[in-house]
Amino acid sequence: MIVLGIDPGTAITGYGVVCTSIEDRAGLVAKGAHGAPRQNEIVRQGAMRLVECGVIRTSPRAPLASRLQDIFEGVTELIERHRPDALAVEDVFFARNVRTTVVLGHARGVVLLAGARAGVTIHEYAPALIKKTVVGRGAATKEQVQFMVARLLRLKSAPQPADAADGVACALTCVMFAGTAKLHLRIAG
Amino acid sequence: MIVLGIDPGTAITGYGVVCTSIEDRAGLVAKGAHGAPRQNEIVRQGAMRLVECGVIRTSPRAPLASRLQDIFEGVTELIERHRPDALAVEDVFFARNVRTTVVLGHARGVVLLAGARAGVTIHEYAPALIKKTVVGRGAATKEQVQFMVARLLRLKSAPQPADAADGVACALTCVMFAGTAKLHLRIAG
Repeated sequence: MIVLGIDPGTAITGYGVVCTSIEDRAGLVAKGAHGAPRQNEIVRQGAMRLVECGVIRTSPRAPLASRLQDIFEGVTELIERHRPDALAVEDVFFARNVRTTVVLGHARGVVLLAGARAGVTIHEYAPALIKKTVVGRGAATKEQVQFMVARLLRLKSAPQPADAADGVACALTCVMFAGTAKLHLRIAG
Repeated sequence: MIVLGIDPGTAITGYGVVCTSIEDRAGLVAKGAHGAPRQNEIVRQGAMRLVECGVIRTSPRAPLASRLQDIFEGVTELIERHRPDALAVEDVFFARNVRTTVVLGHARGVVLLAGARAGVTIHEYAPALIKKTVVGRGAATKEQVQFMVARLLRLKSAPQPADAADGVACALTCVMFAGTAKLHLRIAG
């Protein structure tokens, strides 16, 4: 299962592509008929792997419509390249300034559109749910999200910038809710 | 000059296509060299004409991403069919419910995207400015907007529903700000 997670933003849209090794699990079942699988193979069952993460940056001087176009084309390119089974999009963070929240809605609109046009299944998660799922606390800090993303995916360092980690966290939430990574988490945890 | 005006909404997106007869004005100048133009020709100079208006409706049961796709495709189709010189988009109306305003932002985002992708010049107008320009009062009612739209465009009846009239009013605002309709307004008023 390949999931593309997106943390939409007008200036910076973070993304992460996470893959769960369903192939490994199928191999395990086939092997099971001949002999018991080894410990390390059980751990690999349903393991999550980071394929790519990063950010789509838009020019602060460009008009909003042009920035939305950059976001739409960036997400469309990611979908075409990774052919994800699901698109996980972070819900709007309600900023104190309503105007900021509304502009964020514009960016999120074109992300959802990119998914709809590509025919990808879309899942939406509230920021607090993503933090709760990945860190265990709905009010976790950006640093805590980065730390847990790195730990869950066995990365040497946390994804940078924090927006990229947020995109990965969104993809991880989708994977965890899909249930394919449950076994790995039980063993790793 | 052809202007496509849009009043974005997740459920109903109103639109109006208004044309100003720049061709008439060019003809007038050419004729001016031979003899004085007649009164009715002066009136036609810069006159505004409604080409089409209506609404793009989306299914309330459909997921948001699918509704955004309907809006995007509807606006793209209008741009392809009318090849407007400008796209006039009404700014977000700040509803009392922030959630409503944010969802409206999603719809507006895909409208701006449709314009950017088609390479059309985009103008944005606040709801109060549109009412002030068309009716003369920033706090005008929907009925007053419908009445003035019908009057300015010499229509037998007001555009229905009110969302379509709002789309037309947005296009009219753009035309009036562009200055091409100034002479007509002076004579008509």
